[in-house]
Amino acid sequence: MSAARAQFDEAGRLRHLLTLEAMPPRLILELLDTAAALAAATGGKVKKLPLLRGRTVVNLFFEPSTRTRTSFELAASRLSAEVVNFDVAQSSTTKGETVLDTLRTLEAMHCDLFVVRHRENGTPEYLARHAGPGVAIVNAGDGNHAHPTQGLLDAYTIRHHKGPEFGRLRVAIVGDIAHSRVARSAIHVLTALGVGELRVCGPAALLPRDLGPAIAVSSDLDAILDGVDVVMMLRLQRERMRETEVPDAADYHARYGLDRRRLALARPDAIVMHPGPMNRGVEIASEVADGPQSVILDQVSNGLVVRMAVMARLVGAGNVAG
Amino acid sequence: MSAARAQFDEAGRLRHLLTLEAMPPRLILELLDTAAALAAATGGKVKKLPLLRGRTVVNLFFEPSTRTRTSFELAASRLSAEVVNFDVAQSSTTKGETVLDTLRTLEAMHCDLFVVRHRENGTPEYLARHAGPGVAIVNAGDGNHAHPTQGLLDAYTIRHHKGPEFGRLRVAIVGDIAHSRVARSAIHVLTALGVGELRVCGPAALLPRDLGPAIAVSSDLDAILDGVDVVMMLRLQRERMRETEVPDAADYHARYGLDRRRLALARPDAIVMHPGPMNRGVEIASEVADGPQSVILDQVSNGLVVRMAVMARLVGAGNVAG
Amino acid sequence: MSAARAQFDEAGRLRHLLTLEAMPPRLILELLDTAAALAAATGGKVKKLPLLRGRTVVNLFFEPSTRTRTSFELAASRLSAEVVNFDVAQSSTTKGETVLDTLRTLEAMHCDLFVVRHRENGTPEYLARHAGPGVAIVNAGDGNHAHPTQGLLDAYTIRHHKGPEFGRLRVAIVGDIAHSRVARSAIHVLTALGVGELRVCGPAALLPRDLGPAIAVSSDLDAILDGVDVVMMLRLQRERMRETEVPDAADYHARYGLDRRRLALARPDAIVMHPGPMNRGVEIASEVADGPQSVILDQVSNGLVVRMAVMARLVGAGNVAG
Repeated sequence: MSAARAQFDEAGRLRHLLTLEAMPPRLILELLDTAAALAAATGGKVKKLPLLRGRTVVNLFFEPSTRTRTSFELAASRLSAEVVNFDVAQSSTTKGETVLDTLRTLEAMHCDLFVVRHRENGTPEYLARHAGPGVAIVNAGDGNHAHPTQGLLDAYTIRHHKGPEFGRLRVAIVGDIAHSRVARSAIHVLTALGVGELRVCGPAALLPRDLGPAIAVSSDLDAILDGVDVVMMLRLQRERMRETEVPDAADYHARYGLDRRRLALARPDAIVMHPGPMNRGVEIASEVADGPQSVILDQVSNGLVVRMAVMARLVGAGNVAG
Repeated sequence: MSAARAQFDEAGRLRHLLTLEAMPPRLILELLDTAAALAAATGGKVKKLPLLRGRTVVNLFFEPSTRTRTSFELAASRLSAEVVNFDVAQSSTTKGETVLDTLRTLEAMHCDLFVVRHRENGTPEYLARHAGPGVAIVNAGDGNHAHPTQGLLDAYTIRHHKGPEFGRLRVAIVGDIAHSRVARSAIHVLTALGVGELRVCGPAALLPRDLGPAIAVSSDLDAILDGVDVVMMLRLQRERMRETEVPDAADYHARYGLDRRRLALARPDAIVMHPGPMNRGVEIASEVADGPQSVILDQVSNGLVVRMAVMARLVGAGNVAG
Repeated sequence: MSAARAQFDEAGRLRHLLTLEAMPPRLILELLDTAAALAAATGGKVKKLPLLRGRTVVNLFFEPSTRTRTSFELAASRLSAEVVNFDVAQSSTTKGETVLDTLRTLEAMHCDLFVVRHRENGTPEYLARHAGPGVAIVNAGDGNHAHPTQGLLDAYTIRHHKGPEFGRLRVAIVGDIAHSRVARSAIHVLTALGVGELRVCGPAALLPRDLGPAIAVSSDLDAILDGVDVVMMLRLQRERMRETEVPDAADYHARYGLDRRRLALARPDAIVMHPGPMNRGVEIASEVADGPQSVILDQVSNGLVVRMAVMARLVGAGNVAG
């Protein structure tokens, strides 16, 4: 809960985006509405908007992720911000500088917004607590804790395809729940928006124990998929597992992979989501990933406008003056 | 030939640039003329032109090449495009994502043109066949297959120095022909433009067997250079050879290196070309590389305007509407 | 002294910035005044100025340094220059291209200003001697020779806090003097500006022998700090030392680390400087680094406007025409 509080200023306004845990539903909907307005304003073809003119956005990635970094980079530059990619792999942190000194150094260069990815839970919150006045932190993924822009783009995508009445929807999240900040942020945002039913599925060893009574948990994928409106498949993050935990890919696919047969258990108009990058043939079969029910590439497009909305909210002309 | 076909749309218009094989001479000349017009318009000092305003160009390099990437980056930004360097070495492909998923992801972020370099022959063609509507692929070098913008800048440089009548010219290409996409693209473009005589020279082990009867092939460099107007030296690409193939550098220079004595066998006004980066003292002596007949740095400058011409053709305002 | 001469053209105008050795005080003050004017013009919030519009700046870093590269990148883009980061680690130099060929290639792409960092003394001077007309080189640190923009920002910071009368000031430089281009450039600029007293302190093995009679040298830190107005702490650059030279961190801190007790030996209004990145607990205690006398983050901010001033001087509209 501490990150949930740290992202608001004393007047209760959003100053950083660290987590979707305990995020007021009204605020989530405002961000989704702003993203939708940006999508409409730019009409498919994204044009430059002047909302972040004169601002500098730093991609501060302590874990490599070209695809997420590129999404933030394009979102920022389409808002007319200056963007700097601060590649920490070859930076002074390897010379012993602390994370906080890196932040303060870049603040001293008049950078306004930091997009932070780090393998340790809580680093973005730590930086947010120490950020100078007017400086905003966006969590682009910390450990297995949170990935709030992913949660927002997931909610945006579901609303776009299934309409605004989340109370009518059944959503299944499938895969490596325990290691997944994507799953955590999805659970937070869907709960906040009052999703009708939330089900979680994965190997017993990859299921967390503390999800509470409102969420159905099972290792039986066929049962989980029965009648759902949305199937969110997670990436099997072999790079985050200890060696003894890594399941055999074929074995995993047989038990937890989404193929056409299994998808038929969901509602006929169910949508299929995946945060990418996909392990085809492991958590998802290509016939589903590329099939008519897949909205996986919509998620990527929606990620752009959602990130633009978040950045405009945090450091856009209308907000910082406050 | 399949790449040659894949680069045109159904109406016969150039949609991608994959190879110069079977490229209509009229189209080659149009691209060279556009490049010359851009060079004139920008008058030495390159000014920004608005031809790609609102477009996003991605440098999608699966093989590192800072110099070629920089040439494309500068060309794109001088056309007012947004440029993203997608460094695949640290991207999701290392997490198992397919090349095609990488393309589709970036397309979903509304990227318009992809500059692709890959060590495997055919990757740019493969991506072109799967690219979405309005998306263009430029081959920036695939394996030993093709490097079409290099071929175009070579043709541009020869025309600039020797005039438009290619039928009068004798051109020698010297070096590691078998591993060289530069040589292949040069042969294609010079053949299309009706070069008077084309000669190829290199160690027997580095000569291809399938060049056809119109091209003279020899391992005797002195004989090859006799009376030529253009000498194109190739880089000895030790990084592409198997260990047993790599020739000794001094030995190679003695037999296939271009020095002042050998250059004197060519016409007195012959020009010397090299695609860079040079191995000085191996394929070319410094006295020649830096001598009055060298046009090697002209090639670099011409590469900029040629790449601008290609990008303007593929996604510039006038074309995409069609 | 050769770098000192190489940076001026025949008319005595600054064409490159290679060293502060023998730099005329008038010129140093002009650069500091320009930086101060830029700071005032941009009023804290840095706005874009058009001084380098149409120019291309290349960050040519043969040694990784994300923080210094970022400072130059932001300075250049706030002057409206195009900026290219030429990451030499993955460039053609690994394929055997010479440094000079890399420069000439980028010049041929119409790049105007090169920010060069290299581990060998003299590389920026070497490039400056061979640069084409209208092309400027800025030394961003070469070996243990010079780091002139650091020296300028240090002088700027001291003048800002202590006023323009350098003759009244006592300055101590503490640490790994022998390996430090920061120390050398600081000594040059402070000597040029007529500093009242300059003292240097460090372990005997890390002290140079050739500083001349005007500079007090000692290994007794307490004695050195007595009554000084400015304390410049240097980074212990373990990455530049041979293994046998590296001191034990705790031991080093005990003898040469600046903590609150020692700082009390200086004047009560003394300022504490450090070029970053800091080894907290080694050369500087956190209580001092983050204390009220620290101007370390001011140095970072001042670095931006100083680098803007240098680039505007070298290739800005008013200069290149000449």
